[in-house]
Amino acid sequence: MKKRKKRSAHLQSLLFLFVKKLAILYILKPTRTQFAGGLPLTHALSIFALGGVYEIGKNMYGIQYEDDIILIDCGSKFPDESLLGVDLIIPDVTYLLENQDKVRGLLVTHGHEDHIGGIPYLLKQIDMPIYGTQLTLGLIGAKLKEHGLLQKSKLTPIDSKATIRFGSLHVSFFQTNHSIPDCLGIVCETPEGTVVHTGDFKFDLSPVNNQTPDIHRMAEIGQKGVLVLLSESTNAERPGFTPSERLVGDHLLEAFRKAEKKIFVSTFASNVYRLQQVVDAAEATNRKLTLLGRSMVNVVKIASEQGYLRIPEGMLMESEEAAELDSDELVILCTGSQGEPMAALSRLSTSNYRHIKVQPGDTVILSATPIPGNERNVSRIVDNLFILGAKVIYGSGSVTGMHVSGHGSQEELKLMLTLMKPQYFIPIHGEYRMLYQHRLLAEAIGIDPNHILLLNIGDVVDIHNSKVKQERKIPAGNTLVDGLGIGDVGTMILRDRKHLSEDGIMVVVVTRSKADGKILTGPDLISRGFVYAPESEELIEEATRIATAALLRLQEENVNQWNRLKQGMREAVGQFLYERTKKRPMILPIIMEV
Amino acid sequence: MKKRKKRSAHLQSLLFLFVKKLAILYILKPTRTQFAGGLPLTHALSIFALGGVYEIGKNMYGIQYEDDIILIDCGSKFPDESLLGVDLIIPDVTYLLENQDKVRGLLVTHGHEDHIGGIPYLLKQIDMPIYGTQLTLGLIGAKLKEHGLLQKSKLTPIDSKATIRFGSLHVSFFQTNHSIPDCLGIVCETPEGTVVHTGDFKFDLSPVNNQTPDIHRMAEIGQKGVLVLLSESTNAERPGFTPSERLVGDHLLEAFRKAEKKIFVSTFASNVYRLQQVVDAAEATNRKLTLLGRSMVNVVKIASEQGYLRIPEGMLMESEEAAELDSDELVILCTGSQGEPMAALSRLSTSNYRHIKVQPGDTVILSATPIPGNERNVSRIVDNLFILGAKVIYGSGSVTGMHVSGHGSQEELKLMLTLMKPQYFIPIHGEYRMLYQHRLLAEAIGIDPNHILLLNIGDVVDIHNSKVKQERKIPAGNTLVDGLGIGDVGTMILRDRKHLSEDGIMVVVVTRSKADGKILTGPDLISRGFVYAPESEELIEEATRIATAALLRLQEENVNQWNRLKQGMREAVGQFLYERTKKRPMILPIIMEV
Repeated sequence: MKKRKKRSAHLQSLLFLFVKKLAILYILKPTRTQFAGGLPLTHALSIFALGGVYEIGKNMYGIQYEDDIILIDCGSKFPDESLLGVDLIIPDVTYLLENQDKVRGLLVTHGHEDHIGGIPYLLKQIDMPIYGTQLTLGLIGAKLKEHGLLQKSKLTPIDSKATIRFGSLHVSFFQTNHSIPDCLGIVCETPEGTVVHTGDFKFDLSPVNNQTPDIHRMAEIGQKGVLVLLSESTNAERPGFTPSERLVGDHLLEAFRKAEKKIFVSTFASNVYRLQQVVDAAEATNRKLTLLGRSMVNVVKIASEQGYLRIPEGMLMESEEAAELDSDELVILCTGSQGEPMAALSRLSTSNYRHIKVQPGDTVILSATPIPGNERNVSRIVDNLFILGAKVIYGSGSVTGMHVSGHGSQEELKLMLTLMKPQYFIPIHGEYRMLYQHRLLAEAIGIDPNHILLLNIGDVVDIHNSKVKQERKIPAGNTLVDGLGIGDVGTMILRDRKHLSEDGIMVVVVTRSKADGKILTGPDLISRGFVYAPESEELIEEATRIATAALLRLQEENVNQWNRLKQGMREAVGQFLYERTKKRPMILPIIMEV
Repeated sequence: MKKRKKRSAHLQSLLFLFVKKLAILYILKPTRTQFAGGLPLTHALSIFALGGVYEIGKNMYGIQYEDDIILIDCGSKFPDESLLGVDLIIPDVTYLLENQDKVRGLLVTHGHEDHIGGIPYLLKQIDMPIYGTQLTLGLIGAKLKEHGLLQKSKLTPIDSKATIRFGSLHVSFFQTNHSIPDCLGIVCETPEGTVVHTGDFKFDLSPVNNQTPDIHRMAEIGQKGVLVLLSESTNAERPGFTPSERLVGDHLLEAFRKAEKKIFVSTFASNVYRLQQVVDAAEATNRKLTLLGRSMVNVVKIASEQGYLRIPEGMLMESEEAAELDSDELVILCTGSQGEPMAALSRLSTSNYRHIKVQPGDTVILSATPIPGNERNVSRIVDNLFILGAKVIYGSGSVTGMHVSGHGSQEELKLMLTLMKPQYFIPIHGEYRMLYQHRLLAEAIGIDPNHILLLNIGDVVDIHNSKVKQERKIPAGNTLVDGLGIGDVGTMILRDRKHLSEDGIMVVVVTRSKADGKILTGPDLISRGFVYAPESEELIEEATRIATAALLRLQEENVNQWNRLKQGMREAVGQFLYERTKKRPMILPIIMEV
């Protein structure tokens, strides 16, 4: 018996060496399960992203084991300047629609827009229970209410100690720390092994609300064995360790002590820690507080009610009352730190509030670093605030001390990787270059380069009998929200909008006789966004002659198909206008027959 | 005689004290001229900006003494995203048109777009001689040739030793250093005192081409007495001293030595020093050179012909030939470092060149820091280059060492102020916050805060009998270039373009009988950029019914004015579409009567 055991151990180690060699060739590595003496598993574990990789925004990940799918987050992102008129981008959920019966639920790591913004649109298409911490559900609830979906939604509050079984998937959580309270990492035990999803995190070891990242639990998870780690990559390009949120509090207090008149602080409404530190600094300097901006009012309401934000009795005032105070008695917390043209800070910079105005000697603190793409808008606001006579504290948070990131830098990403010791690593939550840099970090801590998988949206990682493959694709993409339309903004419409936005439109309308094709009235030329007609009478007159000539010529050639007549007018008018203006307005010919 | 002199000196010093006091109150300070015993001057010196202050771009400054106006620079700037379809912004030169007979000439400090881009448009309106160094005129010439203006232009080459008399104004120059060779500062002696304009500058004390800033001459100018200094403010927010261009050369060479395959370097075509350092690094590593991008080819041609750029015999190749080389034998210099969608680097990132492609293992160096507003485009390109397998060196030049600014930082701005010791200081060339920071620097070196004047475009500083006033305004603003149209893009057109770009257009056209108002055909509804009709037949059908009903109802009410009929259809259709789609397309009703 003893001998057999020894022999079997010897065979096993031989096999191990063989398999280890294979692993390098076939991206295959033995898991603990396989060598625990059990039967090889016959069902596949699949991991996929419907959003959040090769992009910043609209995070949505899926873990499937046989007939059980759980989803992690369902975010939105804002369109770039090429998607004219589009309101929002959400993940394409075709795959989920095709597998509705398998979807067990949506787990939400935290309450930021890039993790919850797509939920109302998802629920309109597929009903499913949603799990999140109290604050996260509070923010989701506000969103569902706007869409009239709150009543029929199944929101289940959890905390970091919860465990949930979804068929073959057993889910637990661990507490992390980020720029919003109550953030979760997710542990999903599957028959094939354990999958961990970090959510967004930093390692703030002196956090404002004592929600310290639960490193002991992370170590325990890693010790038990992690098959696949999905970890966020936002700051993978940034060396070092992200400073603690508490540092911002020190700088705020210093600025509050120096300020002689009103103090405006603009920051992300969802950063409840930051709001708390503004409240604390206001308390320490005997100032009252008022709020500007809809999302600021919303978040303060939800976070106060739920106990995440402590505001001393009597400190918070309506702006009408607050306007009556002496200027050195007031702090204004406002939205718009990213330069959003309709938000409070932008409106303040153009004196666009009735009760509260920025006046000479006031202090304006931008407690945020501009997100790439927003610099120009933020700068314009800073200029206007200076012109109003304010002392403006602006620029990168690392210089002013007025902002720290909510995402871990390179050393923190390495710490997470080290704690979890995953067999396979999938960097998520980032543009390609961030995922790429995160891969380099993983390699630096000794993870086998062949075990690091970079997914695009729709790519599926299949793990079956401990064999890992990345070959399959499921439908994925950008679903555009445009007014009430979801996904109906085609390439054609966007191309037309682009064309219209640059050169405008020229409508050429003509009425002719159904009987003999004789022109009865017109062509009339009407333009919008091209040249303002009263200033360009001559141009329009000449273009009208050109359109008429083109139409008559074609009629003389006995051309009678509408399409060819329209085409003829379009070309003649288009060419003339280009020669005269070097602009190419959209030409829209309309023929009416009576 | 002696006594009289003494007494007069006593009176003078009393007067001095009195006037000094006044100075604080009235922003007035005695000049040397006044106390040199001469008669008080009766004619005014005026200084104004037509562009370049409260903005970055379209620099244009004017100095006028009585009937003599000289202009300094005439730049352009690019429109922001709100100016849809606009190609370029140039200064409004109404004031110069009104005073054509007084304009003596245009002095150009250097050949960057924000200093020369408006020249062709200026010359189309007002003829004047242009003065600049050889390279500056080479770049202006290329521009004038494109506009068919080169033959009739009066371009006079000068160097830093030149002196020119324009009626009462005596102009000389001093050599400065910037990110393009042959930069000039301008000294304009007037009967009221000396005005100095720095142009763009840094103090690169170990420049690449030995064009060291002429500090001795600057000291001499300051020693003789400067009434007003206009100094550039681009980097007034940046502490310290801008590093020497030479540092970039060291980093380039290091990267070239490490590179195993092709090397792409993307930078500003006009930075001839940078181009030279790329050539030098290519020579040191035995690589050939090819160029991608029209402006790169242009500048290399002009700069080589004029001797500013030295390229070893046989190094420069056409891209077709270069494609035949081994990958470790080639360097590609290309445009597009700011992420411009049509420039070489962007096209390379999407494999859009026939002969030259970015391949795995190639090195791509972004030798430029993204200008605020361009980050998003640059990042997209970096991502695509990584996906192609390139090693990309990107990010802020201060981190990668691959870029240094061409503008002096705070210590250099203070050095210029110290050398020039001006009585009055006007910070120029910058957004308001930069001018504001520059003011603080001037205060820090001891310039009287009341002698620092912040101008907006159109503001005039008048100096008369040593009294300084900033009260007058002349016409100034943004002239928009849109195709061949200059200045004819009105607010209405831009508003229409914005509307069209977001929600598209719905044309509602109907033909009715002139005799009895009976609807003969239509209403037909045609949309562009709103919803793609084939997918929305039902919506269009219903909207057609709504339009018809609105028209019939108005006709029944005996409404017959076209305006009211159109208004009725517009409102009915608009409201219906908003309710159904939450979009507000532009509704364009057209009534044809036959």
